[in-house]
Amino acid sequence: MQADLICVGSELLTGLVENSNTGFLARRLWGAGIPLRESSVVADNEEAIRTALNRGLEMSDLVILTGGLGPTDDDITREAVAAILGLPLVLNRGWLDRMEELFTGRGLKMPDNNRKQAYVIEGAILLENRRGTAPGLIIRWKEKLIILLPGPPYEMQAMFEEAVLPVILNFNKSNPVTVKTLKCIGMGESMLEEKIKALDNRDLPSLSYVARGYEVDLQIKGMGNPGSISQSIENAERILRAELGDYIFGSDEDTLAGLVAELLTGKGLTLALAESCSGGLLSDTITDIPGSSKFYRGGIIAYSRKAKINLLVIKEEMLEREGEVSEATAGAMAEGVRALFGADYGIGITGIAGPESDASQGPVGLVFVAVAYSGGSECKKLQLGGGRRSIKERAAQFALDLLRRKLIGG
Amino acid sequence: MQADLICVGSELLTGLVENSNTGFLARRLWGAGIPLRESSVVADNEEAIRTALNRGLEMSDLVILTGGLGPTDDDITREAVAAILGLPLVLNRGWLDRMEELFTGRGLKMPDNNRKQAYVIEGAILLENRRGTAPGLIIRWKEKLIILLPGPPYEMQAMFEEAVLPVILNFNKSNPVTVKTLKCIGMGESMLEEKIKALDNRDLPSLSYVARGYEVDLQIKGMGNPGSISQSIENAERILRAELGDYIFGSDEDTLAGLVAELLTGKGLTLALAESCSGGLLSDTITDIPGSSKFYRGGIIAYSRKAKINLLVIKEEMLEREGEVSEATAGAMAEGVRALFGADYGIGITGIAGPESDASQGPVGLVFVAVAYSGGSECKKLQLGGGRRSIKERAAQFALDLLRRKLIGG
Repeated sequence: MQADLICVGSELLTGLVENSNTGFLARRLWGAGIPLRESSVVADNEEAIRTALNRGLEMSDLVILTGGLGPTDDDITREAVAAILGLPLVLNRGWLDRMEELFTGRGLKMPDNNRKQAYVIEGAILLENRRGTAPGLIIRWKEKLIILLPGPPYEMQAMFEEAVLPVILNFNKSNPVTVKTLKCIGMGESMLEEKIKALDNRDLPSLSYVARGYEVDLQIKGMGNPGSISQSIENAERILRAELGDYIFGSDEDTLAGLVAELLTGKGLTLALAESCSGGLLSDTITDIPGSSKFYRGGIIAYSRKAKINLLVIKEEMLEREGEVSEATAGAMAEGVRALFGADYGIGITGIAGPESDASQGPVGLVFVAVAYSGGSECKKLQLGGGRRSIKERAAQFALDLLRRKLIGG
Repeated sequence: MQADLICVGSELLTGLVENSNTGFLARRLWGAGIPLRESSVVADNEEAIRTALNRGLEMSDLVILTGGLGPTDDDITREAVAAILGLPLVLNRGWLDRMEELFTGRGLKMPDNNRKQAYVIEGAILLENRRGTAPGLIIRWKEKLIILLPGPPYEMQAMFEEAVLPVILNFNKSNPVTVKTLKCIGMGESMLEEKIKALDNRDLPSLSYVARGYEVDLQIKGMGNPGSISQSIENAERILRAELGDYIFGSDEDTLAGLVAELLTGKGLTLALAESCSGGLLSDTITDIPGSSKFYRGGIIAYSRKAKINLLVIKEEMLEREGEVSEATAGAMAEGVRALFGADYGIGITGIAGPESDASQGPVGLVFVAVAYSGGSECKKLQLGGGRRSIKERAAQFALDLLRRKLIGG
């Protein structure tokens, strides 16, 4: 079973609106064992939708369309799909009442153009939208499934998780694919592959490797009877965990920051950050986690020499002697910020993100990351490639992993 | 003139690797007056590439393919395009020598599989790659252009800017489209549209509006003789600037953070940030700008009450009385961080990013943003919708705009 994805929206073709739906749906479908065959972005235009929908119906079992379900004149996906399939649009009285109540509840009169959102394709199943006025639609069409979802990611994602995923998993029952992803960090993609190949273990099914900065997703995939497959996947997981140990930090939907958050929260420990070259990215990543205020005390962006001296209480002569980008400075930043916020763990990151480097400090991509804790600290030196953003990202990932290893080690 | 974009890469269809090439190329092509007709992601597989390439050649004047130019076995774009067009691959001796030198220069022997990158489609123009070993290729094919670019964004973007853009602008000479984008902030999309419609000015050509969080891109578009068109666009720009004034913060490739950075650097002023609910996102945005260390002194992520009291020197009784999420606290954060870092401007952001709220503090989405400067401070209250990330993003955008208005006003 495979799927085609069609994102409808002229604004997406200008690149001025970010299209996060493709990535989200690709990941979720992949994880559900229904890989995307092709994904496309087309304009709000019946002809463009027709070509893409016909192609999808010809090649795949499932076609998902996002966008173009809004109330304005250029939202035409529902009308276009109805015309292409030769099905009428019919008023759904219940949805209309629901929308009218929604507006009344806010003390507003429903604008006339919202009425069209209550006209749905005949025979389609309506999907609840807790976050907007457009219903999702599921249409069974000649052994295939066509699913229409709203474009705004906030609405689409909730609808997909709650209403769509159960339906397509059920639809896929006859030919199930099971995927288990082990999330690794600390070893490059090719070294990981070499290590696993060297095992030469016939119990390992086909694996794929996907690198994301410092992380590698290791995917174990099996097709067939769920009972026997899940056993063989469990078996493969056991072999891989025995070999890779701490290089595996989680599985499936886990994130490195989420895992570190869980470890800290579970142990009742707190964290503070001192960032220089990563400029707040690590703090931003951590505070994206709901409930991070439980363990995260706060941070210092020490972007100037003076901030390092005054706030993190780093001795000026040490900075002079060792340099702002050095093991000693990263360690002092981690210890300084730990003391300043009274946290259990402190992280210090200093380096040169580029694109230019004052040669006296070292080359672009040179980064030191330190973790300080009760009774000591640990520091690592990195030489990172890529542009400014990529250097910031890898430095932040590496710091999270260093902290993770401390948390599971002690 | 319009373009089709085909991103080749099975890993992109899993969603586990982010596809930033579509957004980048869509934006750059749109700005160059060559809108994308359709954009698709296909697997590393000749049949999938064939279908997409044939469709692109049928519908568009320009087809760009990214990805699949690497040295490994699954990189087959070059070979597939050659086969589809019926053209042979020929060894480019110069490129081979160049790659060999590159490896020798690093003290390495070139792996055998890199050799295939020197085999190029007959008649194609090679494009320099300063950041990798895959050459880009431009092929003229029956009045159309086919362009092959490497997949890694870091390589692709440099190649596009330096080598591709001049060629396609030249190719498009006979039917040029000119687009000027005015970047607005501080007024919603629909209010902006209403205001401009009310002008009822016949000298205004067709405009389009694209909202991105708090920002709106206002696009003026014209087609035809560049001389007369640029004059009519300049004329429209003058009318819009007269009407919208400070709501316009820049044009075309300008970013709000980049503009604020320019204003600060130009005036020799410095900045410090105190972030609570935005959690470091604003600091991360600012430090993405190369050279930001010239004006950015640093910041405090005051994620705990204690950090606000100890570091930002906010009086505890004031926090008790006014609450951590209040105008008074945002103002005290801005002033505190300004003093702490000895900066000319201080920004304070406090609010409730959700998804849960301790009801005593206020509803999710309530945010206060303050700017402090020599002799005073200014604070704004916001009630933002959307999820946790979107609240963080809008709070950061709003803060940048508040600072911008201060910088251009005084």
